[in-house]
Amino acid sequence: MLISSLLLMTTILSTHATIQTKSIEYTQDGVTLEGYLAYDDSLPGKRPGVLVVHQWLGLTHYEKHRAEMLAQLGYVAFCADIYGKNQRPKDVSEAGALATKFKTDRTLLRARANAGLDVLRQQPNVDPQKLAAIGYCFGGTTVIELARSGADLGGVVSFHGGLDSPTPADGKNIKCKVLALAGADDPFQKPDDLAAFESEMRDNKVDWQIAFYGGAVHAFTQPNPGFVNAGAKYNEKADKRSWQAMKDFFAEIF
Amino acid sequence: MLISSLLLMTTILSTHATIQTKSIEYTQDGVTLEGYLAYDDSLPGKRPGVLVVHQWLGLTHYEKHRAEMLAQLGYVAFCADIYGKNQRPKDVSEAGALATKFKTDRTLLRARANAGLDVLRQQPNVDPQKLAAIGYCFGGTTVIELARSGADLGGVVSFHGGLDSPTPADGKNIKCKVLALAGADDPFQKPDDLAAFESEMRDNKVDWQIAFYGGAVHAFTQPNPGFVNAGAKYNEKADKRSWQAMKDFFAEIF
Repeated sequence: MLISSLLLMTTILSTHATIQTKSIEYTQDGVTLEGYLAYDDSLPGKRPGVLVVHQWLGLTHYEKHRAEMLAQLGYVAFCADIYGKNQRPKDVSEAGALATKFKTDRTLLRARANAGLDVLRQQPNVDPQKLAAIGYCFGGTTVIELARSGADLGGVVSFHGGLDSPTPADGKNIKCKVLALAGADDPFQKPDDLAAFESEMRDNKVDWQIAFYGGAVHAFTQPNPGFVNAGAKYNEKADKRSWQAMKDFFAEIF
Repeated sequence: MLISSLLLMTTILSTHATIQTKSIEYTQDGVTLEGYLAYDDSLPGKRPGVLVVHQWLGLTHYEKHRAEMLAQLGYVAFCADIYGKNQRPKDVSEAGALATKFKTDRTLLRARANAGLDVLRQQPNVDPQKLAAIGYCFGGTTVIELARSGADLGGVVSFHGGLDSPTPADGKNIKCKVLALAGADDPFQKPDDLAAFESEMRDNKVDWQIAFYGGAVHAFTQPNPGFVNAGAKYNEKADKRSWQAMKDFFAEIF
């Protein structure tokens, strides 16, 4: 009887809880960027904040949906915009050009990621002592770069991101925990890059982990990665397992 | 008020729940073995069953404690005895001799593991459709061999176990999910063995995963692995993370 009443009350509360979302314009070095904020306004006080960094297609419905999922978990989530307002690739050709621009200018990439983190940190309902960043593909690379920039946050999670670094010595700047979630059969993850990443983490005594999901290739969390072939494909099991691994990581750091 | 009452009730229930334990003698091909059962007798109906396979030191307090932890999670846990009743190594020399005996006779190792699984399956409070096996070091190797024997169970979890196989073609027999949890700096995990294991899983389309914990060496879950040096040492973070990974795995398969 007690249990029934409580369950009913919880259900009502859940129904009343609404996820608030809004676009936020901000700038980095004079360039206008447009991110997306999501949070549950029924939760009191300051909440942990999670930055979400987009895949190579730019900030799409996909990342916004992840931010809403994070809001449902009780976090304040902010999708960074790395490319710039209205810089939304129409096809894989434009996506490739933009991703390459930032992957070959890691200083700019780090600056854009930090600009997004600053917006998140400044939200009135965010606890600035409890921050993390997650990213997908290109965004997975970006959040590791955010860590390499020495950003002050609890941890970063890379979902099928490239782990390569043109400046492995920057591993010494990493202050946060690092979790990499990878497809065991991802053809875009070069063994040499992986070995270099592991050495970078090890040499700099980073608190790091990596999980490999058998049968998963690149973009395993994304129903629409821009292209689908044998090398990039959604994998429901790996999607769910990696999301759970992220939740466990957050439970540890927040 | 409702919440307070419910929490109080839960506390009382927890206090009343007691973990029952007992030794069980059984045989394999005429050899007497002595295992250890643990379960929560306050739980109704049939429960998922988890086999626990010991490290090279044989069935010790360590594995019994893990079985009790599993019982507290609501599972019926049974520690297998691979070596035989009273075969309890006094030192690392005896442990090495016994572990080597079984690691070089995988047919016998599989038979002993299956004998333990049979005992677990036959417990009146075990759901025979919901079985898993976990193992530590030598036991981690053993549970993978159990899978390679074609045993009918939902999944196996190897904690810092050797993943090598003298008969990689036996990967075709694996019917269950496989989760390997490894120290990223384990000097006993040879890169060639790891690569062969991955190929075995991949070639046979096994549902497999592997997680590596940075900074962790061999025996990272064990405060007393028989010896402690730079290559084998307890690591609290990796211990907790791997236990959580196991719980997530069980949540998926049970």
